[in-house]
Amino acid sequence: MQFFSHRKHEWVLRWRVSGYTGSMHPSDPLNLTLENHHPAAFACLTEVGKRMYFPMGIPAQAVEAKAAPINATIGQLTDGLGKAMPLQAIANGIRGTSPNDATLYAPQGGRRDLREAWKARLDASGTGPKSLPFCTVGLTHGLSLLADLFVDGATDVLLPDPGWGNYRHIFETKNGGRMHRYPVFKDGVFCADAMETALKTVETTGVVVLNFPGNPTGYTPTRAEIKPWLDAIRRSEKPIVVICDDAYAGFVYDQDCLQTSPFHALCDADPHRVLAVKVDGATKELSFFGGRVGFVTFAVDGPATEALEHKIKGLARANVSTAPAISQAVVLAALRDPDLDRQQSELLALCQQRYEALRSSVQSASLQCLPFNSGFFLLLPVGGDPHALRKRLLDRGMGIVALPQYSAIRIAFSSTRTEDIPVLIKAIAEEINR
Amino acid sequence: MQFFSHRKHEWVLRWRVSGYTGSMHPSDPLNLTLENHHPAAFACLTEVGKRMYFPMGIPAQAVEAKAAPINATIGQLTDGLGKAMPLQAIANGIRGTSPNDATLYAPQGGRRDLREAWKARLDASGTGPKSLPFCTVGLTHGLSLLADLFVDGATDVLLPDPGWGNYRHIFETKNGGRMHRYPVFKDGVFCADAMETALKTVETTGVVVLNFPGNPTGYTPTRAEIKPWLDAIRRSEKPIVVICDDAYAGFVYDQDCLQTSPFHALCDADPHRVLAVKVDGATKELSFFGGRVGFVTFAVDGPATEALEHKIKGLARANVSTAPAISQAVVLAALRDPDLDRQQSELLALCQQRYEALRSSVQSASLQCLPFNSGFFLLLPVGGDPHALRKRLLDRGMGIVALPQYSAIRIAFSSTRTEDIPVLIKAIAEEINR
Repeated sequence: MQFFSHRKHEWVLRWRVSGYTGSMHPSDPLNLTLENHHPAAFACLTEVGKRMYFPMGIPAQAVEAKAAPINATIGQLTDGLGKAMPLQAIANGIRGTSPNDATLYAPQGGRRDLREAWKARLDASGTGPKSLPFCTVGLTHGLSLLADLFVDGATDVLLPDPGWGNYRHIFETKNGGRMHRYPVFKDGVFCADAMETALKTVETTGVVVLNFPGNPTGYTPTRAEIKPWLDAIRRSEKPIVVICDDAYAGFVYDQDCLQTSPFHALCDADPHRVLAVKVDGATKELSFFGGRVGFVTFAVDGPATEALEHKIKGLARANVSTAPAISQAVVLAALRDPDLDRQQSELLALCQQRYEALRSSVQSASLQCLPFNSGFFLLLPVGGDPHALRKRLLDRGMGIVALPQYSAIRIAFSSTRTEDIPVLIKAIAEEINR
Repeated sequence: MQFFSHRKHEWVLRWRVSGYTGSMHPSDPLNLTLENHHPAAFACLTEVGKRMYFPMGIPAQAVEAKAAPINATIGQLTDGLGKAMPLQAIANGIRGTSPNDATLYAPQGGRRDLREAWKARLDASGTGPKSLPFCTVGLTHGLSLLADLFVDGATDVLLPDPGWGNYRHIFETKNGGRMHRYPVFKDGVFCADAMETALKTVETTGVVVLNFPGNPTGYTPTRAEIKPWLDAIRRSEKPIVVICDDAYAGFVYDQDCLQTSPFHALCDADPHRVLAVKVDGATKELSFFGGRVGFVTFAVDGPATEALEHKIKGLARANVSTAPAISQAVVLAALRDPDLDRQQSELLALCQQRYEALRSSVQSASLQCLPFNSGFFLLLPVGGDPHALRKRLLDRGMGIVALPQYSAIRIAFSSTRTEDIPVLIKAIAEEINR
């Protein structure tokens, strides 16, 4: 992935000024093909269209590991043998959805009863002002809508490092923002001054992404650890939008770390400096990956609430119209199921079991990993080429994800059976110490 | 809707140069509210974010008509009493979807078996080269992805007039293209030279939207009528992308008019001049409005096919990630149902019955309407203010949509019982002749 570098803006400039000179952007071969084989399509491409390509990353590695008996590549909850583990409330919702609820259009922005049910969940976590959650087509869609509203070539976007690869694809490849990575860890512990330093790079306006529990880190800071970050955000000298990507909300295995989203702590930030936004949804929280039900919630009250609702509703109308009615009906049925809390606790207990098996296996094997205490993942720095390690493990029937930009591998314990975890870690230790 | 005029680009310029002077853009009040009540949110808005607002149109009128016993406002198929009429194949699909298919992620771009099944449907209508249909979150999403790839401030976008209001919202409000309306009718008949004239307005590159059966016209031309349009497109001097919005494909009630999309006739166009694209889906074709399953198919072959697939897949990855797995599973189950054709014919026969009731009622009442022969709608020009007529009909328990920009009303016979149609038309005639 070396070609996916910080060169994009130079490239766009190069593209405009002098055509193909020097190094490659991943969209170059696509553009060249279109220029040669479909000149009309090429001529009609916008700047976004020219920049666009499909990033080959984790999905490609997941495909290679599909046949592996132990497959720890995929960030979705499975039984460890590739099968779904739906909450009974979701499974019942699917069977019980009426044709009216499933096949007719849902209202723009989502069913009001669903939006209110989701708001009740958020209110239970924090009491600050917040808008009625806006229903999106999964969490990526929430990030994309926020990118269209708040990110263009004049925006400095601060992303966690390590962080989810798709952030860059959304905010830079699609929206053309200027990317900056801030370190989550320094010398193996949470980096206290990362946010204050990062905010200094904001020239005009900024977008900051917070992601706890994090992908790929599996880390959530303690209340004390995150305090300097929140203080720095509250004092931001430039206006910023802070997006709390809470995809993995609730999957926290350590009582010491933050149990709720930093969004709640930012709800009272000065509206001259900070707009806090929460992006979350049923994808991971309700183990409904294929439903594509996400939400965007703004930390606002008063007249700004309706203005932002109109902005995002207008944008969604021009992008996907309504979110799927069938999925909304299923999620609402699940939220209304009185047994939901018990089912979620059961799922969380299973994840906790896998997490603890992983923690003790890593300790027994004396492997040095980055801090992890939540979410679906563990990040393990490896000496040398993680792709070579990945391939050797594949030969042994075990799939993990190589992240060469961090000289690390990511282990998804969300898709690994508890009893397979010691086997996997032992094999990794053997391959590392070979 | 007078404020929704051709002034937008001047407005954007005005906005940048001198702030609020002169006439209002619908986004002005939203921006002013944010400036006063959430300065950080306002400061962080992109140009798209500043332009954005939620257009109040047909949905607002549909809400007002919700309690009317005869409700001909909504462009979705109902039993005429507000209830869904799902195909049995879709209803079975919902009940029969396995947790694995419904709750795990679908692949980027859609399930391959679904994409192949949709391609087989398209191949049955026309044999030209075409890409594997790319699965989107409903048809609006297909239009939005194409807009991001092909429409910016330098693009001339040619839209049908009368045409769907949301085209403008997508291509202008979101993507900033230059809108031009071409007339579908002239002196009450299909306008033969509309396309040739319209194409002359394309300065650099263009996007042309064809929509047959049309919304709100309910019209599909004959093969002879559309020939001059297709000839003009094939001769286009500037590179253009022709988007065939085939939302209402198959709902054709007259043997004389085009039975398949003009997309098929454009498949062999010169790739130096024309890229033809088909946007269609299960929304109307399979009466699965709430499922949000659409497709984008390019009329290409050879290396350009993969390049365009990568472009659109990359864009979707940065926008919604995958389309809902649950809806894809339902549509695939329906496509595999050997009884689907019979069920669709039955639904078509019902629409045909409503169409014929409408045609004979309109003739009996000596009302002058625009030509209609397909789709879900009829457009009826009315002397005077259509909103006043709409309100008088609402008082009589009947809902229709007022389109003041055309001094016309739109009647959705897709949501009206056959036996109610003569009653509705009689009432309209009485109110017009009052």
